[in-house]
Amino acid sequence: MTDLSQGAAWMGGRIIPISEASIGVTDWGLTHSDIAYDVVPVWAGAFFRLEDYLDRFLASVAAQRMNILMDRSEVQGALQAMVGASGLRDAYVAMVAARGPNPVPGSRDPRDCQNHFYAWCVPYVHIVKPDQADRGTTVWIAKSVRRIPRDSVDPKVKNYHWGDFTSGLYEAKDQEFETTLLLDHEGNVTEGPGFNVFAVFGNRVVTSDHGVLHGITRRTVLEMAAAQGFAVETRPLPLEELWAADEVFLSSSGGGVIPVAQVDERRFSNGAPGPAARTLRQTYFEWLEEPRLRSPIRYD
Amino acid sequence: MTDLSQGAAWMGGRIIPISEASIGVTDWGLTHSDIAYDVVPVWAGAFFRLEDYLDRFLASVAAQRMNILMDRSEVQGALQAMVGASGLRDAYVAMVAARGPNPVPGSRDPRDCQNHFYAWCVPYVHIVKPDQADRGTTVWIAKSVRRIPRDSVDPKVKNYHWGDFTSGLYEAKDQEFETTLLLDHEGNVTEGPGFNVFAVFGNRVVTSDHGVLHGITRRTVLEMAAAQGFAVETRPLPLEELWAADEVFLSSSGGGVIPVAQVDERRFSNGAPGPAARTLRQTYFEWLEEPRLRSPIRYD
Ligand SMILES: Cc1ncc(COP(=O)(O)O)c(C=O)c1O
Ligand SMILES: Cc1ncc(COP(=O)(O)O)c(C=O)c1O
Repeated sequence: MTDLSQGAAWMGGRIIPISEASIGVTDWGLTHSDIAYDVVPVWAGAFFRLEDYLDRFLASVAAQRMNILMDRSEVQGALQAMVGASGLRDAYVAMVAARGPNPVPGSRDPRDCQNHFYAWCVPYVHIVKPDQADRGTTVWIAKSVRRIPRDSVDPKVKNYHWGDFTSGLYEAKDQEFETTLLLDHEGNVTEGPGFNVFAVFGNRVVTSDHGVLHGITRRTVLEMAAAQGFAVETRPLPLEELWAADEVFLSSSGGGVIPVAQVDERRFSNGAPGPAARTLRQTYFEWLEEPRLRSPIRYD
Repeated sequence: MTDLSQGAAWMGGRIIPISEASIGVTDWGLTHSDIAYDVVPVWAGAFFRLEDYLDRFLASVAAQRMNILMDRSEVQGALQAMVGASGLRDAYVAMVAARGPNPVPGSRDPRDCQNHFYAWCVPYVHIVKPDQADRGTTVWIAKSVRRIPRDSVDPKVKNYHWGDFTSGLYEAKDQEFETTLLLDHEGNVTEGPGFNVFAVFGNRVVTSDHGVLHGITRRTVLEMAAAQGFAVETRPLPLEELWAADEVFLSSSGGGVIPVAQVDERRFSNGAPGPAARTLRQTYFEWLEEPRLRSPIRYD
């Protein structure tokens, strides 16, 4: 029996250990970062909001004009089989469509490429460690770099163009901050490496609408906030407005709602999670267990 | 004896067929497009301007704060050994630094990654087929997409963030044009998938300075043009100015100087290569054979 507890991959119908899963060095998925992907969380033995993640993934694949030769139920079957075989009860599950190798020697035409699908899973990833998230994390506004604009690369198509985030992350780490938040070229708050951003003003919750991935966790937050009586606003959020917020928090499939204690030198809610973020964080973990949002996995 | 005539790769000190060369699906080089690379041409059994390509590559690696644990002479040795073993006399030779896998489970910190170097080579690639380049190619100005700006991802660090180019290429192919040229957000000409762009006005040759890779072929063109008595100007080139050019041409390590017959509906130099581009194309192929610019390869 192969050990899949560190992670597994589904490649061309075979399930293999994550350490053996690779793609060719000439695959356009790598050489042109020509990838559409998605990441669905598995929590306590079930996919969370699987249909929403599949919707977004398949919309991204279509937007990239890729044909992965698999339909929705086959993608779902691959994810189920892979996670089922891995035995992982809490997992980070990636599904990937790659432009693929170009079999025509010297061709520079993307239409010649052989698109392909693969998937992989590893133990659940918290983008901020849970104990730090519980205390409130620290966020550095990147100074040297702006988010890649949406008329260059569409952020609604989940993609691997992370050069701007990586530059911002190095800045953040140099300043001893946990993570980074990027502005657009107009000075609005966008998103960070793996998360959307929210500001709370009294009973209003605001998050960016343009120039960001429409996170599934962002959607969950908007639903939870509405259910808790908050007014929700999706619109551009200028940095100046952020400074006046009562609370700031992040949303991600990798950890749910993550309170922010500090952005640059400014502390929020006395340098600790505020009441709205704390409640939403708790509610997110409850929703992860809601049967109506779960697709249970059959383990081998 | 393994057949390396379709291409070879150097990975961790081993030389393998290109078809076997791959990187892990969780390598940040892939998942964050966190790569610095370069491509040096081999022509008639020798590297062309190898020192210049190595300079650019090592500057890119340093700019990305990667440590590939190999010095310049080791990189050069790897390239020599790989091409020598492949037997390829005319080759496209890629050297790649990847951020690598992150061995700390769940870590989102780029400083934890194990950076690594690899290289691969395939038969020489002409980004435009030579017969079409000889007749003058066709270029579509991308309408739906702008070049990723230099304050988001630095184009002087040769990278795999090609989403903007790929969108432009699909537009071009839909219009039955060969390739695409991207504008920056101010409406200046930048570059295209694999090439820089030049405009000729009488005895002046103009090419963009900002928001583009500083191509080694671009440098060769600037040197050849100066030697032939042209005035050379590196500065922003507004699209409106391009329309007034006598000639337009592209430069790339994949084919040298490539005359342009048509941009959108506008034909240049009567829909054929103009005299400057034709001469520079010829001169480039002569310079490829100049001993002072060549580093001969020892074949096995
Ligand atoms: C750039 C970016 N923004 C936002 C998010 C959050 O999206 P989701 O809530 O669907 O995980 C992610 C997730 O990885 C992301 O990569
Ligand atoms: C984006 C881009 N611009 C310009 C060039 C031309 O650079 P060089 O002349 O060094 O090949 C390339 C080469 O591949 C490129 O990828």
